[in-house]
Amino acid sequence: MRIGLAQINTLVGDLPGNSRIILDAYRTLVARGAELVVFPELAVCGYPPRDLLFRKRFVSDVIQATTAIAAEIGAVPAVIGYIEANPTGKGRAAFNAAAFCHRGKIIASARKCLLPTYDVFDEDRYFEPAEAPTVIEFGGRRIGITLCEDIWTHRTIPTRQLYPIDPVHFLAGRQLDLLLNLSASPWYSAKENVRTTLVTDAARACGCAHVYCNSIGGNDELIFDGRSMVSDAQGRLIAGLAAFRADLAVVDTAPAAPAAAGAFHPTFAQADLPDVYDALVLGLRDYVRKTGFQRALLGLSGGIDSALTAVLAAEALGPENVIGVSLPSVISSQHSRDDAAALARNLGIGFHTIPIAATVAAAEQTLAPLFAGRPRDIAEENIQARARGLLLMAISNKFGALLLTTGNKSELAVGYCTLYGDMCGGLAVISDVFKTQVYALSRWINRDREIIPVNSIDKAPSAELRPNQTDQDSLPAYDLLDAILKGYVEEGLSRRDLIAAGFDAAVVNDVARKVDLNEYKRKQAAPGLKITPLAFGVGRRIPIVQKYVS
Amino acid sequence: MRIGLAQINTLVGDLPGNSRIILDAYRTLVARGAELVVFPELAVCGYPPRDLLFRKRFVSDVIQATTAIAAEIGAVPAVIGYIEANPTGKGRAAFNAAAFCHRGKIIASARKCLLPTYDVFDEDRYFEPAEAPTVIEFGGRRIGITLCEDIWTHRTIPTRQLYPIDPVHFLAGRQLDLLLNLSASPWYSAKENVRTTLVTDAARACGCAHVYCNSIGGNDELIFDGRSMVSDAQGRLIAGLAAFRADLAVVDTAPAAPAAAGAFHPTFAQADLPDVYDALVLGLRDYVRKTGFQRALLGLSGGIDSALTAVLAAEALGPENVIGVSLPSVISSQHSRDDAAALARNLGIGFHTIPIAATVAAAEQTLAPLFAGRPRDIAEENIQARARGLLLMAISNKFGALLLTTGNKSELAVGYCTLYGDMCGGLAVISDVFKTQVYALSRWINRDREIIPVNSIDKAPSAELRPNQTDQDSLPAYDLLDAILKGYVEEGLSRRDLIAAGFDAAVVNDVARKVDLNEYKRKQAAPGLKITPLAFGVGRRIPIVQKYVS
Repeated sequence: MRIGLAQINTLVGDLPGNSRIILDAYRTLVARGAELVVFPELAVCGYPPRDLLFRKRFVSDVIQATTAIAAEIGAVPAVIGYIEANPTGKGRAAFNAAAFCHRGKIIASARKCLLPTYDVFDEDRYFEPAEAPTVIEFGGRRIGITLCEDIWTHRTIPTRQLYPIDPVHFLAGRQLDLLLNLSASPWYSAKENVRTTLVTDAARACGCAHVYCNSIGGNDELIFDGRSMVSDAQGRLIAGLAAFRADLAVVDTAPAAPAAAGAFHPTFAQADLPDVYDALVLGLRDYVRKTGFQRALLGLSGGIDSALTAVLAAEALGPENVIGVSLPSVISSQHSRDDAAALARNLGIGFHTIPIAATVAAAEQTLAPLFAGRPRDIAEENIQARARGLLLMAISNKFGALLLTTGNKSELAVGYCTLYGDMCGGLAVISDVFKTQVYALSRWINRDREIIPVNSIDKAPSAELRPNQTDQDSLPAYDLLDAILKGYVEEGLSRRDLIAAGFDAAVVNDVARKVDLNEYKRKQAAPGLKITPLAFGVGRRIPIVQKYVS
Repeated sequence: MRIGLAQINTLVGDLPGNSRIILDAYRTLVARGAELVVFPELAVCGYPPRDLLFRKRFVSDVIQATTAIAAEIGAVPAVIGYIEANPTGKGRAAFNAAAFCHRGKIIASARKCLLPTYDVFDEDRYFEPAEAPTVIEFGGRRIGITLCEDIWTHRTIPTRQLYPIDPVHFLAGRQLDLLLNLSASPWYSAKENVRTTLVTDAARACGCAHVYCNSIGGNDELIFDGRSMVSDAQGRLIAGLAAFRADLAVVDTAPAAPAAAGAFHPTFAQADLPDVYDALVLGLRDYVRKTGFQRALLGLSGGIDSALTAVLAAEALGPENVIGVSLPSVISSQHSRDDAAALARNLGIGFHTIPIAATVAAAEQTLAPLFAGRPRDIAEENIQARARGLLLMAISNKFGALLLTTGNKSELAVGYCTLYGDMCGGLAVISDVFKTQVYALSRWINRDREIIPVNSIDKAPSAELRPNQTDQDSLPAYDLLDAILKGYVEEGLSRRDLIAAGFDAAVVNDVARKVDLNEYKRKQAAPGLKITPLAFGVGRRIPIVQKYVS
């Protein structure tokens, strides 16, 4: 059977826009010979709609939009992620479902069984689970339909223990001719390999081809990578769509010849660094464009973090839509200014120099009577960072360019950043990228020619808020810091566990204390693009007021 | 039976501190003649621990602390909210439970059945539900134990439809001698009346006395009001503890004489305005103290919002621990400065005047070459607000005083506030108080004498960022605005619904557009104290990137 996979980029809540995207993809795939067209989970409303689901008309508006889409569906059926109302008055008001549309109507609906509530997911807040997956008989074929989490029950997936049922196991005994999975599966590094195992093993278990159709695009913190794929009944992958790009493909589930290399988009299986790069570019582009901006703005310190962010912005938006601003203080070294200017030249982005000395001096003079007799301290350092934030936001307001913040995950974890200073901005582009990975990405970007000045990569990192300051005055070396953070923040290990694993007790205690103490800063941080299993953001919910030490 | 109610104020994650509070309360209540002592839900770890539950050792640490508490419990048993490990390896790793402690041991555990996932609650993320509530036989009595949400199944509660079972109904047929409910029920305006109905009707249904023990205290956004109470078997309230204060009481569930007036704390049933006032004072005090601050700082504009916030801070922390700062610009009127100074005098708080003109001028001059030829606009208005933020944060850093932000719910809803400007601060004290309620509270505060200058209350509200600017230049009258916001934000009504209800279409569309557009500001807002059923904060999860119009 020739299946059309519609790997589309939707916008949450944009029912008219998403409907157009869905129908355009449908028509294109039908014209290319598809006999059935599959769309991602919640394609009609975008994923995740979150509390829009509590708006009184949201569910009925989505159903109305889906009905209107169905009216345009002809002899070739389409399976489209949407929301179904729960008519029983018991449980949540809606189901996360797939509409099987044919000849102008929704002829069947398949509901999601497994509703994740871990990490970034809150589906139990919104949806009622189905007791079992749906099998639809169509054109003499038995088609099993699952939605995203429904297939995350493989023996290798730890979260499978959360669920009392296994939809794949249920379907394995149902003599299927075809298995579909509609997904909105946000990406993190290396997740694609897990998915391939799930998709091919489910095909083998059900003894039929398995078509997996995933969303692409950025929505707030989440980046959906697509990588839709098809497995044959023997569990051999026979097609793989693009990563981080919209893609439409018609795939024969029982091809006459073995799958050609052309059946796999070059990005379907690419190395981790280009994958992270593509993810951040997509997340940045979609955040800027979907919020209605054309241009972005960022401060260029001459350091590696802002350099990497600028590279990503230039790639995502075009260099002509990116403005870099150097905001030197009296402390800033000449080589920092030169590095910032060289980067802007290399990228071909706009570049301005806005010194902060006058603003800092005015603020300090204003405060001098109040601060008389007290030593200079963090207050004065933060005045510098906040003067930069003030000036950048003024430029953002005046020119209508979205300010990007450039802090990395290591800094944000330990609070090595100034609230309302360098934390100013609408999007935190690399806030889920550890400093060690910032280096790796930057070297990878420079693989053919020097885009990021090597001096920005090689020099000792510094916030340049005090003369001769370096990050390592107050932080351990970044490879050590990142290893501790991975354990403490991402894996939930305690101080005791980390010390037992061989890390220095004083360093562990200092890092853990800083992580806990700076929760208040992260509460007010810009949304950050998620590229790891646990990012600061909606998937991590730590109280600010708390005293747990372990 | 004489029951000791331990209405205590815990700190999330502070296992040693909470253990001390629990044992102190136990000993006091035993000394006063209690035959059984009841504590709130999750008393050992504080509520809500949120993702601390995913720290690898958290559950075992809580169990260890509970075991250590139990070791101190003597012949008088104690029922204490804690976390029980789920030993099955299926489902979530833990239960939200009550430890029945007696003579040095946990002799039984009662698990929570109903796990809320609406509003601020995420309990399904963490806990496995029990299939039925537990009945413990002790000293010849049958004691039914429920936890918080378990009794929120009354016919008047709309969320009851979310659950397949009704623990109160289950217990009604179990010949109970006593019913206990351990709660951590965050307050919002008028919620206490709902609770009284639940508690008394459950007593009647089970035909026995019902002891309801609730937490008090502030934890991040949430304010727990306490108001623990006891109903007799006939559903008559026989005791009510204090609102917004720790309180310990021994109550005889079958008193010889009718309940005396002294059985009810004066705050147990007080009017709404003093209730809101007490809630905000407690939330502010606990946020400041539990984060380790002694002092707070705020900008005083001469307007009503900052005046109300200053009153609350002076009450919560003592006037000697509050610093008010007037930050006049060249636009600020003399009467604004005078009103700010008069307020500070009335309250006896510290007061400084820090003009922003020099900082603003320096920033504008620095930007002049870049801004040449462009008209003055919002960019310059925001420079003023952000200069204030910068100066206030410098004072906060220098003196170690927590900066309070003073915006109200109406402003925050429509984005009538400057990110990194007047939105700077660690806590948004009145961000869940509509402007109309700000007026009502202020007048109530002035009921005996003028504390807030009447001019601050009576003059037309203005951000004073442009000459002769008033809020009503860009917003509808506040009573109209608040009515629309209540429908659009709190009740989830659509524009169509509001227009059909008689509101002007242009006004509705403008307000709704502003609410949607300013989600990005609220994403970076300080945590705000919740006093309504739907506050901006963890209980409202709207995507930033979204285009839903209804």
